Amino acid sequence: MSNKKHFPLKQLEILIAELSKFPGIGPKTAFRMTMNIIRRGKNDMLQLSNALINLAESIKICKVCKSLSDDDICLICNDPERDKETICIVEDIEDLLSIERTNVYKGVYHVLGGLINPMEGITPANLYISDLINRLLNEKVKEIIFALSPTPEGDTTAHYIYRQLKNLNIKVTTIARGISMGTEIEYADEYTLSKSIQNRVLFE
Amino acid sequence: MSNKKHFPLKQLEILIAELSKFPGIGPKTAFRMTMNIIRRGKNDMLQLSNALINLAESIKICKVCKSLSDDDICLICNDPERDKETICIVEDIEDLLSIERTNVYKGVYHVLGGLINPMEGITPANLYISDLINRLLNEKVKEIIFALSPTPEGDTTAHYIYRQLKNLNIKVTTIARGISMGTEIEYADEYTLSKSIQNRVLFE
Repeated sequence: MSNKKHFPLKQLEILIAELSKFPGIGPKTAFRMTMNIIRRGKNDMLQLSNALINLAESIKICKVCKSLSDDDICLICNDPERDKETICIVEDIEDLLSIERTNVYKGVYHVLGGLINPMEGITPANLYISDLINRLLNEKVKEIIFALSPTPEGDTTAHYIYRQLKNLNIKVTTIARGISMGTEIEYADEYTLSKSIQNRVLFE
Repeated sequence: MSNKKHFPLKQLEILIAELSKFPGIGPKTAFRMTMNIIRRGKNDMLQLSNALINLAESIKICKVCKSLSDDDICLICNDPERDKETICIVEDIEDLLSIERTNVYKGVYHVLGGLINPMEGITPANLYISDLINRLLNEKVKEIIFALSPTPEGDTTAHYIYRQLKNLNIKVTTIARGISMGTEIEYADEYTLSKSIQNRVLFE
């Protein structure tokens, strides 16, 4: 793509450049994607274009849980079947969707928008933590569940939040650490293995 | 993504579905791409959207060489520095662009739009072959160069075209088959090796 003078179609270059902005998509992949959608035809190009415009114009942050939403309040917070007294605290919407896919959790969420990470300049003020505290002060909440990654950043963030709400008389839990399905005990790390022994459950 | 009821943003699903239409991009990759462009912001979503609309609305087939173009005549056919008396015959625009990137070829092209393949129902009538013959009858052309893949389909297509133009007093050549850079002779296939001996050139 170096010889721009001879590129037979200027708009091709522009689309390839836009697609190359995605992580993991280099100019060659972007070119193959461009040729593919050209072969599929004008209709597919316009459908993808419309999907992008519609998402760009409709995307909002849910006023309650700070998840992505297409309305002021997201579908989960608006769902009368969800238990509003249990809030699961997640780093981002990817984690929220992973939990949703399990079909096990029936409470609601609070999306922090990241984890505290002083090395990268992410402080509590950059996250939706004060929104969470306000929510806990104003809503009737019985339990919050930390579903944060088992990293120093995840632990720091959980402890920071915990210190702020320990006087609120709310049950605070965290998702279980244990041996993953398919993991051989021989290869489990010591931290996970020790947690899985401490948090052992009745055999069923 | 199975639990559509709880997907917090309907427009997300639509974009993920559109991105999943690209070969090699599954729902997980499409989801990661969607989250990435949301993080990059509305401006990037609209830029990609515009690139698609502009391409869809501007894309044409060059009336001369059948390459993609944003005008009736493509940039190569319109370039006064290109030698219009030499036509390189290629299967598709990918092959054309590969040759362009070498910066060696200064003639023009004719894009067939595929290769003759009776098994897949591709006959000469499905390709831009009659357009090529008309072009050779009406333009002053000294040489055509077959730059088709060394496959049965490539050979069939080249021979079909050759039979139709052998009375036109045009020099017909084909790109050299030989040992590729970095290939050890021990591992070269017999056909390529025999061609590379027959078509040997003076040592410089």
